[in-house]
Amino acid sequence: MSHPTDFSRRARWSGGESLVSVLMAKALTHPELTSLAAGFVENQTLPVDATARAFEAVWSVPERAREALQYGTTIGYPPLRQAIVDRLVSCDGLPPGALSADHVVITPGSNQLLYLVACVLCDPGDVVLCGAPSYFVYLATLRGLGIRSIGVAVDQRGMVPEALEEQLERLERQGQLGRVKAIYVTSYFDNPTGLTLAAERRGAMVETARRWSKAGRIYIIEDTAYRELRYWGDDVPSLRSFDPSGETVIQAGTFSKSYSPGIRVGWGVLPPELVEPVLTAKGNLDFGSPQLNQVLMSTVLELGLFDRHLEVLRQGYRAKVEATMEAAERFLGPLSGVQCQRPNGGLYVWLRLPEGVDTGPAGRLFDLAAERGVLYVPGQFCYPAEGPPVPRNRIRLSFGTASCEEIGRGIEALAGAIRQVTG
Amino acid sequence: MSHPTDFSRRARWSGGESLVSVLMAKALTHPELTSLAAGFVENQTLPVDATARAFEAVWSVPERAREALQYGTTIGYPPLRQAIVDRLVSCDGLPPGALSADHVVITPGSNQLLYLVACVLCDPGDVVLCGAPSYFVYLATLRGLGIRSIGVAVDQRGMVPEALEEQLERLERQGQLGRVKAIYVTSYFDNPTGLTLAAERRGAMVETARRWSKAGRIYIIEDTAYRELRYWGDDVPSLRSFDPSGETVIQAGTFSKSYSPGIRVGWGVLPPELVEPVLTAKGNLDFGSPQLNQVLMSTVLELGLFDRHLEVLRQGYRAKVEATMEAAERFLGPLSGVQCQRPNGGLYVWLRLPEGVDTGPAGRLFDLAAERGVLYVPGQFCYPAEGPPVPRNRIRLSFGTASCEEIGRGIEALAGAIRQVTG
Repeated sequence: MSHPTDFSRRARWSGGESLVSVLMAKALTHPELTSLAAGFVENQTLPVDATARAFEAVWSVPERAREALQYGTTIGYPPLRQAIVDRLVSCDGLPPGALSADHVVITPGSNQLLYLVACVLCDPGDVVLCGAPSYFVYLATLRGLGIRSIGVAVDQRGMVPEALEEQLERLERQGQLGRVKAIYVTSYFDNPTGLTLAAERRGAMVETARRWSKAGRIYIIEDTAYRELRYWGDDVPSLRSFDPSGETVIQAGTFSKSYSPGIRVGWGVLPPELVEPVLTAKGNLDFGSPQLNQVLMSTVLELGLFDRHLEVLRQGYRAKVEATMEAAERFLGPLSGVQCQRPNGGLYVWLRLPEGVDTGPAGRLFDLAAERGVLYVPGQFCYPAEGPPVPRNRIRLSFGTASCEEIGRGIEALAGAIRQVTG
Repeated sequence: MSHPTDFSRRARWSGGESLVSVLMAKALTHPELTSLAAGFVENQTLPVDATARAFEAVWSVPERAREALQYGTTIGYPPLRQAIVDRLVSCDGLPPGALSADHVVITPGSNQLLYLVACVLCDPGDVVLCGAPSYFVYLATLRGLGIRSIGVAVDQRGMVPEALEEQLERLERQGQLGRVKAIYVTSYFDNPTGLTLAAERRGAMVETARRWSKAGRIYIIEDTAYRELRYWGDDVPSLRSFDPSGETVIQAGTFSKSYSPGIRVGWGVLPPELVEPVLTAKGNLDFGSPQLNQVLMSTVLELGLFDRHLEVLRQGYRAKVEATMEAAERFLGPLSGVQCQRPNGGLYVWLRLPEGVDTGPAGRLFDLAAERGVLYVPGQFCYPAEGPPVPRNRIRLSFGTASCEEIGRGIEALAGAIRQVTG
């Protein structure tokens, strides 16, 4: 007399066709595909030797090895939190002591930090404003928690200040301003656009969040996952650096892209009042992140292995951006209505195809491209649940895992498929 | 004009005085305390050499090292999932193929698995039936999700079948049966009681869960965190082994206690229909558990290092149980109204003090014990939010971290404090 399961509302909110399942299904039926879809990092440059050196350094002191194998605290390994603070203070040119390790929480990747913050700030029906487009995993996280993601237009300098104001005004008119809990921004080499929020928009965005905190506090969630992956130009001060009191900006970061996703150490720099609720939520979830990974990562930083590895990565990815742009110019350039923006860092290139081309699984291009051997992320998966109309003609290409040669072949195949649907 | 934060309902549900904060505050003001409170594992026997051997084995094959440093899948590393299935099939004496690795999900510790299952099955206001007492972190997890924990009496053979029936009948009379989503049981060397659910109650409990699945499916969540830490007697088949179709029992396990909490690899064996929703929830939370930890743990199993380490652990903890019981007999034995149950495994001993003694932070004993140098877990923190009246005179002692000598000193100090409050 067994009864079917009534899944929770959260499980039902999370349901439906996910991007990952669409891509997996396609990859399974076309095993020889060149994937320009996954946001994975390059395999060949993973830090095999550096990690071995860090492991040996930890294991050369038995007490330290035991520390790595024992439980840690929920907030995370103190030397690692201090090392992160020291790096951020230096990158942002802040006075010593401007950030405190007491406000840094270690998570296994920055995703868990984004999840915990959403749990602590938002009830179902609350609102997070996101760029249109935005990081699709975060959008799925919000949906799974019953949180409304509302899109704000972006241009080549990132989220458009006037569009943000307009969206806030609209929500205020609707009596919904009190439901707005945060503005989410990937401030460096955005996923999926590859673009960086312009320096002159950063202070203004912090000021906007404060000014609109009339019906309830509105935070900025600054995702810096790709900050270290800069291949050209100078670093820009973070949004957090425009918020000296640290009351407005929640900053998430990670070593997943810049060192190793398999070690998976991320962090959050939190406004003081969020530290305790985030730690309570994390305590209920997993007590704390695996200590081994934290001790290893802390040692990697301490021995200077991280900065050396970054140089290797930057060189490798710089070549891949060049390969991507060369192939784009050669194969996509001749196609009318195709635009491609050169990124200065990160792992992604955002393409705009002619109006009328549907890049999604319902259109012809996705299948044709797969038949020709290339897999991409249809841009339409990267748009918030509400907001401006979703363009169907965008594509995210990732140059993380493919070799320069594969990138060339993949883009050539994509160009062929585009010609097929537009010709 | 900044507004205070409106935290989410979840953050508010999680608030209030936690056991951990009570213990931390006490430990900070009495730095010389012998802690018989924390559920940490012994420091000296952490597998330093075994883990070094596994690391070297992985790193001796560069492709495998790169695999460890790269992203994995959300469900977890296939060889590890297969190794877990093989062990469970062998421990439970099941026919080959009785369990499938497709239903095993790897989580960083079993706690995340418990959390994910709660998210997927329960809405706020839903009910999980738990032993009174139960694992306090899980009770906090339920509270943080707005889920009602309702206590069911336990005796020396674990959860009492008649008490479980009565609780289900009562909830049915109240029209609440459809809100009951699961029965939670730590089936081996329970935290906090140290007791194992009797073999003859296991099949009956599975049958009870099925029979009462009238208004909605009622699962059993079997937490096997301490199964491997058996110091005397023979292993007992799991609750899962009484559920051949795997539709009723969700089994959670972990290598945190039996190998290393710092590596922190746990797992769930899920009913088939729960696999996809749990993976979706996990995808939104962290994509998947750190791959490095999974590859290492898989190698530890493959090289036979795990079983060898278990022997070392069992020998060490067996001596500690003896030390605990000797000290209890010597120092607590002469005190009237104090009872102590010898555990055959796990990390905990459960004490019953005379009626009228309040072991909690509001009573005198907790402070007096700390002044005499010993910290314990007040039993009252281990009771579900609803159910039978909560006894105030229970104590959980953990012999995980203290040495045999410290255990003796700690119990002597506790006896002194008990004499002070009862004399």
